[in-house]
Amino acid sequence: MIHNFKDFDLDSLFSSINSDLLTVDSIIAENIFCEIDFIDKSLLGLIDNNRKRIRCALVVLFSKIACVANTDLTFKLAACVEILHNAALIHDDVIDSAKFRRGIISVPAELGNQIAVLAGDYLFARSLSVLPENISVIIRNSLISAVQDMTKGELLQLSRKDLVSFDEEFYYQTISLKTAKFMSACCFIGQKLAVNSKYDSISSEFGEKLGMAFQIVDDVNDYEFEFSDTGKMNGVDYFEGKITLPLIVLWKNSTLDFRKKIIKLFNKRNKKNFNKLCKLLKDSETLLQCRNIALQYAEDCRELLKKLPDCASKDILEKLTYFVTNRKY
Amino acid sequence: MIHNFKDFDLDSLFSSINSDLLTVDSIIAENIFCEIDFIDKSLLGLIDNNRKRIRCALVVLFSKIACVANTDLTFKLAACVEILHNAALIHDDVIDSAKFRRGIISVPAELGNQIAVLAGDYLFARSLSVLPENISVIIRNSLISAVQDMTKGELLQLSRKDLVSFDEEFYYQTISLKTAKFMSACCFIGQKLAVNSKYDSISSEFGEKLGMAFQIVDDVNDYEFEFSDTGKMNGVDYFEGKITLPLIVLWKNSTLDFRKKIIKLFNKRNKKNFNKLCKLLKDSETLLQCRNIALQYAEDCRELLKKLPDCASKDILEKLTYFVTNRKY
Repeated sequence: MIHNFKDFDLDSLFSSINSDLLTVDSIIAENIFCEIDFIDKSLLGLIDNNRKRIRCALVVLFSKIACVANTDLTFKLAACVEILHNAALIHDDVIDSAKFRRGIISVPAELGNQIAVLAGDYLFARSLSVLPENISVIIRNSLISAVQDMTKGELLQLSRKDLVSFDEEFYYQTISLKTAKFMSACCFIGQKLAVNSKYDSISSEFGEKLGMAFQIVDDVNDYEFEFSDTGKMNGVDYFEGKITLPLIVLWKNSTLDFRKKIIKLFNKRNKKNFNKLCKLLKDSETLLQCRNIALQYAEDCRELLKKLPDCASKDILEKLTYFVTNRKY
Repeated sequence: MIHNFKDFDLDSLFSSINSDLLTVDSIIAENIFCEIDFIDKSLLGLIDNNRKRIRCALVVLFSKIACVANTDLTFKLAACVEILHNAALIHDDVIDSAKFRRGIISVPAELGNQIAVLAGDYLFARSLSVLPENISVIIRNSLISAVQDMTKGELLQLSRKDLVSFDEEFYYQTISLKTAKFMSACCFIGQKLAVNSKYDSISSEFGEKLGMAFQIVDDVNDYEFEFSDTGKMNGVDYFEGKITLPLIVLWKNSTLDFRKKIIKLFNKRNKKNFNKLCKLLKDSETLLQCRNIALQYAEDCRELLKKLPDCASKDILEKLTYFVTNRKY
């Protein structure tokens, strides 16, 4: 069955766990404020606007699959990962000088980089307060490792800015660390709340592969869609000099002469060269090729799901794999 | 007995716990690297250059006072607070656009703000990995609260930039959160490693007051010493539009007419106006007044120490109270 993006948006996809997500939302709302009005207003806007809530849904869904009885623990853990994710988003927006996040002014654009750096730090610290005290060491360590990996992946990406040394292998290593490991942890810790967790490796692998698909689509979208489609500035990676899969694949498939042209378009970054690059990426079917790689990861996810017992949560996860590869935002 | 700054530097002050601090250093060195050469080099430089190590010394000293037997726990906890502190320093330098830290190029000046934000995040996450798994909930919570307070204090300080609303009470609230609570936590958690900790409130209060003295001196030094004295740029607070105690006290003691002059010097920030303000602060004995407030906090610290059993660690803490108020850097 081929799903189309229009078949479902996330709200309808998550409708059966909506009351759970609302409980998570209320825990988040109780825990993110620093009691400085204009900052709290901006943080609330960020959380409100971040309606994807994929990471906290992964925690909830995998806890359901593992038949976790203690929903209080699940909700707190889901709130923790969502606050962590928002902390990372704020710092991402500082790093990328992003003016908008999903059509709404970004925290750094609204409050300045100084406050945004601190607000991110504050949310990091708050996320740890939300983490239940009696959470297992393995869950705690899994989360901490995921945060480390996330920042290390971002650092890796910033550490290489030339097309020659940034090959596919390095790219996959980078996005695994910066995106996939955290999604993997969300799935893993959700089911790990069960007294006898049975899905350690399936959950981790599912999250890892979903994260890979998610990030590749993000990187392709950055060259394909416009602000008016997504509410997110496009060309962010290009203008930041970040090398992502489309460029790497185009490079790999190019002749020496053509590579010179790519380097020129990449090194002299302006709107005109960006548009030229977008056209090259599209005409050469590079974007399609990249999307196919993401589709394969999503397919792998569905293979993994077959090993899980049939249930409503598993159905949602399956649909989520289609959403991730079809999403524009 | 009046101690003079020249009586001791920190190296000689901490000489009797030097082997402990070296062990802590080695734990830090094992845990801060992200395996990206140029970033690791910069992080190592930061840690090496941060020779004060007051916070980790507080953990060690209070664990000794409480006769904590498990030195391994102490060292790991001390390493954790020092890594946390360095994470905060990096973000501070991003926020203050500081070019130097103690005479050495700052991490953001060396690697750029993007990498510095992430390197700070990475160290935050790493500090949590160093935290021993079997650490008590009360110690863990104390640390997490301290980090929250630190960022909240910084946010508070940035949230008000006009002299009229920034009174002494608000200032003390701010520096308590941003500096004193963390030092307080260091003292508290050091003695809390003891099976039956007896000094919960003395240790917390000592750290809090030491932190207040420490921050006030920092804020006075910013108007008094030059880069050549301290290896730290002066006027940082002024040029960032940060309101600190010297300005608040000067304001409080001034006539309406004089206040207009202060506002002018503060709102039109340039080197000439900074020098004028420094002269005003000195001639009016405002800096002296502020130093006296710090001295009173240090005196309070020594009163608290009287309640602790006599030992070598207590002697060091006493000398530290003098160091903190006499330090130029």
